[in-house]
Amino acid sequence: MHRVGVIGGGQLARMMIQPAVEMGIELRVLAEAPHSSAALVATAIGDYRDSATVLAFAAGVDVITFDHEHVPQDVLAALVAAGATVRPEPAALAVAQDKLVMRERLSALGVPIPAWAAVGDAAALAAFIVAHDGAAVVKTPRGGYDGKGVRVVRDAAEAADWFAAATGPLLAEELVPFRRELAQLVARRPSGEIATWPLVETVQTEGICTEVVAPAPGAADLARSAANLATSIATGLGVTGVLAVELFETDDGRLLVNELAMRPHNSGHWTIDGAVTSQFEQHLRAVLDLPLGDPSAREPWSVMVNVVGGPVGATMPERYPQALAAQPRVKFHSYAKDSRPGRKVGHVTASGDDLDKVRGDARAAAAFFEN
Amino acid sequence: MHRVGVIGGGQLARMMIQPAVEMGIELRVLAEAPHSSAALVATAIGDYRDSATVLAFAAGVDVITFDHEHVPQDVLAALVAAGATVRPEPAALAVAQDKLVMRERLSALGVPIPAWAAVGDAAALAAFIVAHDGAAVVKTPRGGYDGKGVRVVRDAAEAADWFAAATGPLLAEELVPFRRELAQLVARRPSGEIATWPLVETVQTEGICTEVVAPAPGAADLARSAANLATSIATGLGVTGVLAVELFETDDGRLLVNELAMRPHNSGHWTIDGAVTSQFEQHLRAVLDLPLGDPSAREPWSVMVNVVGGPVGATMPERYPQALAAQPRVKFHSYAKDSRPGRKVGHVTASGDDLDKVRGDARAAAAFFEN
Repeated sequence: MHRVGVIGGGQLARMMIQPAVEMGIELRVLAEAPHSSAALVATAIGDYRDSATVLAFAAGVDVITFDHEHVPQDVLAALVAAGATVRPEPAALAVAQDKLVMRERLSALGVPIPAWAAVGDAAALAAFIVAHDGAAVVKTPRGGYDGKGVRVVRDAAEAADWFAAATGPLLAEELVPFRRELAQLVARRPSGEIATWPLVETVQTEGICTEVVAPAPGAADLARSAANLATSIATGLGVTGVLAVELFETDDGRLLVNELAMRPHNSGHWTIDGAVTSQFEQHLRAVLDLPLGDPSAREPWSVMVNVVGGPVGATMPERYPQALAAQPRVKFHSYAKDSRPGRKVGHVTASGDDLDKVRGDARAAAAFFEN
Repeated sequence: MHRVGVIGGGQLARMMIQPAVEMGIELRVLAEAPHSSAALVATAIGDYRDSATVLAFAAGVDVITFDHEHVPQDVLAALVAAGATVRPEPAALAVAQDKLVMRERLSALGVPIPAWAAVGDAAALAAFIVAHDGAAVVKTPRGGYDGKGVRVVRDAAEAADWFAAATGPLLAEELVPFRRELAQLVARRPSGEIATWPLVETVQTEGICTEVVAPAPGAADLARSAANLATSIATGLGVTGVLAVELFETDDGRLLVNELAMRPHNSGHWTIDGAVTSQFEQHLRAVLDLPLGDPSAREPWSVMVNVVGGPVGATMPERYPQALAAQPRVKFHSYAKDSRPGRKVGHVTASGDDLDKVRGDARAAAAFFEN
């Protein structure tokens, strides 16, 4: 058993190619369109919402996994009914697909999260705002990413358009005063084996993850708590594969879970170059129920900086003559995407002993692909 | 310019896939047959000795490079005449293609090599044997690899079959008493930029490289000489891309050049996991005339052990459940080849602070794929 089928042809599927080739694992991708980021291994092109398309794709592989969490539950049910092995399992994935379901399950597991409520109308939201210091973070339960579907409001009227368009309640959360955002990545096999990477600090810019520092500076005390938290979530929800737990470190030093992702995650891109086992290799191992690799960092510090937008009218490789000359130790990753404002088209990673130098090198390298 | 065409679909072409995907470089391979090791990127299948086949392949890429050194000079000349960029250049490649030409050029460059002669018949070989302590290493000038085409003789009659089949002289070399074999890998851009990896020790078993230790233990004094030697050869021959210089460390402590390879080389497989820039990434950078990456080791010691032969009646991935569980820090590489006695079907690499442990782990990991 070593044929993995990935639904979705984005950069996460693309970055599974390297470990698959390395280990001799056959990787196939069902992409939405031609010229996807993972086009090299796209053996099928079609709509992931269409059961027939997905079933036909699944027939050629041993296990189905995902580049994104948007495959509808009825399609997943059809896969399971047809005998396909789906990892993470549909019941776990359901928790990542709906932010209200996620809060219900995390609350039931006793996981610390911001105060929340399902708000069905403006009056309910207004009451939540009054009860939570005059503000709320409102989220659409489904389909958000990179800051989309998230809005901070101080008046219920600011969410009127979402209520008008919604088919059910919205999620309201307290606006947590936090020092910074962290992320804890973990992988779990069906057998229950767990591996946790070092806790990292993530920096968001306009809702998009732009920088990750591994390990999170000055967070040695929090690291064990974060690893335990992520382990209990992965186990409690029965996740297989990589689980990313996005966290707030609050102003009073607590960890609160912000979001979950059940797939390789931007906060783990540094592991390709900075860890003994990358999140992409680990995800393949986990969904194939193979023993997990060592998730330890290879160097004291790694910093990943996303290339957002990309060079105007150019590709990342067209800037390599300058960028590679300036940063011979930095690792460059292109997702083979055209530049577009706000779009993640690649990332760079620097590693070394001196955090200031590593961060400076990574930022300087990424700057070659701006504008 | 970022489309690289590789002639030959073996594991060296395969291992170029990972850095190509990582950096967003388009890789295309002309493979000899379907189901090659590099099948994922094989856009053409055909005979590399046929000019029309190779010219058609070259039309779709920006630069042509190689998985092996066997492309005939008339085909290379046709490529150049058609305007193709060929790296390494045909004149340099000619030196790697013929061991007699290689000795002539190395002698002219003043590079230390074992005493040698072109021997046209048994009488000439007999005279060479008498003049060199009663033994000679006889080599066919063309087409040898993995110990094939190399024979130690003490009587000229032992090479009678080769003389009978030969269309020209054979190469005779003195049998050098050596402590061990070393290899110095270097990369050179067309612009002249050079990068040298750490000097490594190579262990051959029945003519096949089976183990590489990086850096070569106790060779700090030799390291600078080896790097200078490889640099002068790369520059002197005008090599672009990776050049492997196989060396003897003689019983009296000198370095002698044994063989050259103008492509990524088995002695550099450890760089995938053990160096900041792997030989495969560096080769792509070099042939695209992009700035070279840092060739430094990432950890004090790395040991690569080849998987030769492979598990009988099984593939490497079928042994992963045991192997990965036993060695969570080891990196596993499968070439997607069927097992066959004497065939390199993969390799493993371990890295760390303690050479004995690193070597033990690598050997233990490789042992899961024997028998």
